[in-house]
Amino acid sequence: MRAKSFAAPAANKPLEYYEFDRRELTADDVELEVHYCGVCHSDIHTVRGDWGEIEYPCVPGHEIVGFVTRVGKDVTEFKPGDRVGVGCMVNSCGKCEACKRGFENSCFEETIWTYSSKDPADGTDTKGGYSTIMVAPEHFVMHLPESLDMAQAAPLFCAGITTYSPLRHWKTGPGKKVGIIGLGGLGHMGVKYAKAMGAEVWVITSSPDKAETAKSYGADGVIVSSSEKDMEEAAHKFDFLLDTIPKAHDLTPYLNLLNIHGTVCLVGPIEPMPGFHSGDVIGGQKSIAGSGIGGIKETKEMLDYSAEHNILPEIEIIKIQDINKAWGSLKKKQMAKRYVIDIKQSF
Amino acid sequence: MRAKSFAAPAANKPLEYYEFDRRELTADDVELEVHYCGVCHSDIHTVRGDWGEIEYPCVPGHEIVGFVTRVGKDVTEFKPGDRVGVGCMVNSCGKCEACKRGFENSCFEETIWTYSSKDPADGTDTKGGYSTIMVAPEHFVMHLPESLDMAQAAPLFCAGITTYSPLRHWKTGPGKKVGIIGLGGLGHMGVKYAKAMGAEVWVITSSPDKAETAKSYGADGVIVSSSEKDMEEAAHKFDFLLDTIPKAHDLTPYLNLLNIHGTVCLVGPIEPMPGFHSGDVIGGQKSIAGSGIGGIKETKEMLDYSAEHNILPEIEIIKIQDINKAWGSLKKKQMAKRYVIDIKQSF
Repeated sequence: MRAKSFAAPAANKPLEYYEFDRRELTADDVELEVHYCGVCHSDIHTVRGDWGEIEYPCVPGHEIVGFVTRVGKDVTEFKPGDRVGVGCMVNSCGKCEACKRGFENSCFEETIWTYSSKDPADGTDTKGGYSTIMVAPEHFVMHLPESLDMAQAAPLFCAGITTYSPLRHWKTGPGKKVGIIGLGGLGHMGVKYAKAMGAEVWVITSSPDKAETAKSYGADGVIVSSSEKDMEEAAHKFDFLLDTIPKAHDLTPYLNLLNIHGTVCLVGPIEPMPGFHSGDVIGGQKSIAGSGIGGIKETKEMLDYSAEHNILPEIEIIKIQDINKAWGSLKKKQMAKRYVIDIKQSF
Repeated sequence: MRAKSFAAPAANKPLEYYEFDRRELTADDVELEVHYCGVCHSDIHTVRGDWGEIEYPCVPGHEIVGFVTRVGKDVTEFKPGDRVGVGCMVNSCGKCEACKRGFENSCFEETIWTYSSKDPADGTDTKGGYSTIMVAPEHFVMHLPESLDMAQAAPLFCAGITTYSPLRHWKTGPGKKVGIIGLGGLGHMGVKYAKAMGAEVWVITSSPDKAETAKSYGADGVIVSSSEKDMEEAAHKFDFLLDTIPKAHDLTPYLNLLNIHGTVCLVGPIEPMPGFHSGDVIGGQKSIAGSGIGGIKETKEMLDYSAEHNILPEIEIIKIQDINKAWGSLKKKQMAKRYVIDIKQSF
């Protein structure tokens, strides 16, 4: 079936429009007509070559929602017409301990990402949601709870699970003080989940003008990271810091904000980080952790939690033709919300 | 009272012998006659200036046991003749949240270390246990459980609590796989505690000839860190790694040994660490943590646990006159045990 896709033709050039066939459905595949696709910083990293050489065609997008159009002969959980979503991964070995325990995102063999991974089904590069059609194995497709708005639900599949999973794992709840570093697509979801889980939530931002926005999302307070006074006053304050800064950065100022046994968890950058002084974790028995999306089981749990607590991202809907402008805005840190591409209305 | 102390006269020179008075007892001080003092890598770091400029006289030693000789007028818990010990710290603010929660070792104001810290009592530098006399506030002096051998108990006050505390905090127990990186003074205690707590315990060492020793201390297996085969076979194996390497090092090979949700905990180096790739903690939701000794409450718990489970370090008793030779041996990584100075018999 012919897909209309936006694919990056060369590094640092604007996206261009291509048409090509998606791969044939295997017995356990689900095909969906993409209606919405969220815009993630990872898309920019990938098409700019931050994470390695780019293979073309490269079709970004891993916050994908739409309606099922066809299913393979062994598919049992989906039928045409179902409202579904696909997140950041479309395959894994299924056999290792990580996969068996539900952490396909940390497969000991290889997680196959939604775009720019080698697809075990046909050996081509996987292609993401900046496209009219998406094909993925049933196990990696999820039903959308009825109450969730389709456009708003799209970013849950990356920004949602990426913030929900670590907040759950590090036991965010009443009595805990949580700081969300950065108030972009990830950060603003972090504020909403941490608040819903019962924690006292602060936003730590380099953009003082985001203070009001942070509070409107539920933050109890705001710390401006460039203010020495703010940072000194917040020393030892937090049990958990969710660090959504999307590039490598010095962790020292944030380690100083941690209370005894505190953890700063990286969910933004996937790249070499600078060194740190071991004394900054030895004092206070602190941790520097990382977290990336979550397994399929936990993603479904996150969808149910989001529906139950009515947690959805703030979004701005754009057409695919405006993607380069949107990326420019993301790079300038202007967004305390998520762009979502209305794929269906773009053509 | 006149103390006989060994103090470092200048960086990289052999220790020399001095006599000087210890500070006067305050109302809540305890004075002890030092019988044994363990030899810690921190002593070497300090007298070699690894941790900053050296103030003289510098008297190392923070694994101190002896008998109480005098007490200040407000002291209630100790009397002359009591068998006691002093560890790595001799004061803290006592008022901050960390101190109130029992983590004097992570005091938010300043932990006063047993040597080479500014003593709030008289403004001089604190002086450690390479000396015939020790003076410390009552709160930082601990009774020695009766069953513990005095010489063997000395290293519990640093090597013991430094390994016990993180193993407890990260819930070492049955069903957990624990790796102890390095089999020196700290590492060999880590093996004994982790085994007593019920974990499967492996030693990861750069010295293949320590394999038999490791097993004699209770290790279930040994991984040679320079063997690619060993390290590959151990990928994803461990829930917790206690990293006792006493200098900065690349964490990448060890992060690869961690299972989902695993933690590598630094207890060895107190210095700038090299960078790491965030992907190595993001995949598997892993942590790089740190831990340094423990609070007074937990140190007492460790003493009781050690007495109950008969956990004591392997030691080699030396006289103070042999200290430079002992340090040389430590630097060469020849010891899978702890040197203890017999202070009483040295004079």
